[in-house]
Amino acid sequence: MTSYRDAGVDIDAANEAVAGMAAAVRATYTDRVLSDVGSFGGLFSVEDWPGRPVLVASTDGVGTKVKLAAQHRRWRGIGHDLVNHCVNDILVQGARPLFFLDYVATARLESAVIVEIVTGIAEACGAVGCAVLGGETAEMPGVYVEGAVDVAGTIVGMVDRDAVLPRLGDMRVGTPLWALPSSGPHTNGYSLIRHLIEGRDLPEGFIDALLQPHRCYLADLAGTDALGLAHITGGGLLDNVNRVLPASLSARIELGSWEVPPLFRQLVAWGSLPVHEAYRTFNMGVGMVGIGGTPPPGAFPVGELVDRPASGEAVLLVP
Amino acid sequence: MTSYRDAGVDIDAANEAVAGMAAAVRATYTDRVLSDVGSFGGLFSVEDWPGRPVLVASTDGVGTKVKLAAQHRRWRGIGHDLVNHCVNDILVQGARPLFFLDYVATARLESAVIVEIVTGIAEACGAVGCAVLGGETAEMPGVYVEGAVDVAGTIVGMVDRDAVLPRLGDMRVGTPLWALPSSGPHTNGYSLIRHLIEGRDLPEGFIDALLQPHRCYLADLAGTDALGLAHITGGGLLDNVNRVLPASLSARIELGSWEVPPLFRQLVAWGSLPVHEAYRTFNMGVGMVGIGGTPPPGAFPVGELVDRPASGEAVLLVP
Repeated sequence: MTSYRDAGVDIDAANEAVAGMAAAVRATYTDRVLSDVGSFGGLFSVEDWPGRPVLVASTDGVGTKVKLAAQHRRWRGIGHDLVNHCVNDILVQGARPLFFLDYVATARLESAVIVEIVTGIAEACGAVGCAVLGGETAEMPGVYVEGAVDVAGTIVGMVDRDAVLPRLGDMRVGTPLWALPSSGPHTNGYSLIRHLIEGRDLPEGFIDALLQPHRCYLADLAGTDALGLAHITGGGLLDNVNRVLPASLSARIELGSWEVPPLFRQLVAWGSLPVHEAYRTFNMGVGMVGIGGTPPPGAFPVGELVDRPASGEAVLLVP
Repeated sequence: MTSYRDAGVDIDAANEAVAGMAAAVRATYTDRVLSDVGSFGGLFSVEDWPGRPVLVASTDGVGTKVKLAAQHRRWRGIGHDLVNHCVNDILVQGARPLFFLDYVATARLESAVIVEIVTGIAEACGAVGCAVLGGETAEMPGVYVEGAVDVAGTIVGMVDRDAVLPRLGDMRVGTPLWALPSSGPHTNGYSLIRHLIEGRDLPEGFIDALLQPHRCYLADLAGTDALGLAHITGGGLLDNVNRVLPASLSARIELGSWEVPPLFRQLVAWGSLPVHEAYRTFNMGVGMVGIGGTPPPGAFPVGELVDRPASGEAVLLVP
């Protein structure tokens, strides 16, 4: 584990945030996170794990949402964005998070910024019982634009081999589709968003809505009996639901099933976006789609599986 | 796993490089990397792992060496740098690598650059039997300087709980220290290096020497009986050896034990660096220090453990 001290700046508060979080989650994994062995940390025991344990790993960033955060100096939510995005990405494979590692890089390390980001990471990991096992901060003038910060994270989770999602072979024509609402654009479409809002006099609360952290779906979906889950990220409904379908079936999604939140309607109007572009760029109010199983509280039906048409379209958006 | 296709650019060669490597290392972990389950990949089985398995994870970048690589358009070695740095970082905890995930970000994705970096990552992972389990490429104009690329990687390895290094309790006054040579500055000191070489007419081969990839020490040290290993990265001998010592002992390192390579002597001369600054900024020809045990072929003695002096210095550099 690289300590935040290694960055050579005075960011004791960042270390404290991590230490506080580590103590909190250690309660969850008392015997799994080995804090007393060696001098580096970063150790996670998988001794005697029951069943047929499979590790699931994913690396991701939060895209150009960091630009909007920098502009408004609102960094804590970016930590939540990063962790929650990663948690959701392995959740769709059926996995629960074990540990997380972050990478934060910028042209000039600014203590207050790092503290906010790391605190957000710590809070989000703590909320799902995920250990922050390590991290790295890098100061790289000439690589990053002055004032810009990038964050990336890697999550490692665990799933029993018999519970890996999706279960393509169990999907049938007529299997219902349901969805859980997003909390905003999550971490996608921000290059377009920044272009669309440039120079506009924004209504009160609009920036708050835009910077609302990516919702975490672990509490809703841990132990789900769904046959498949699609995390609606870059590429929207069109490019994410298709990844969890067998080649013979398509997802028929009725767009009238939910009310598109005003934020998205406004963005689509400003950009005069055609429907397919809107649903490929933004999540349009839907952050997770489930296939079959018992929908969790708060979920709403959005359609069903149908035979794949001759055109080959895997996701059919029906007005 | 995020496919390199997701970046929205035509980088089929990058995907091919990863696929080719994946096939190569799958031979190593036939039953561990689950390629036929689900549609995302990124699955690694730890079922029935013998002994008391502990996961060790580390995230790192290669610092501003990426600037020098960009200037000379020499990207493949950066992939090796990234992987080897990470492999060495967990090797000092006694761990062997299982899998790796990369993050590559830039202002404008350029196919040829991504291909070279990913190919380098694939080659370096293949060389140590480490699976590339996932990766993410991000195009972030406004965050990265035009033409600059940053790379970060996360490695997850395994060590038996009874083999975790360092073994502080077994170190004694008189325990010998030995070292393995570095292949160059590895991935540290490049901000200073770039400053020192600016505007100079460099001797032939100098850039080659500066961009020589970070040496991987896994083959030298797998199964070592050393009591401790120190990977000489940022902070040099002074700031890395001290991390693997008990509070009562110091490392007495005789600087005459090895010949400092001409590259470092030249850099130190150009910068008129005091000895402590030189040994804190650069590895000065030593990439790994071992404490006790059987030195591997190619290792040379560099000193021994002594009682920690009243001054509290943990690493004593003796001329």
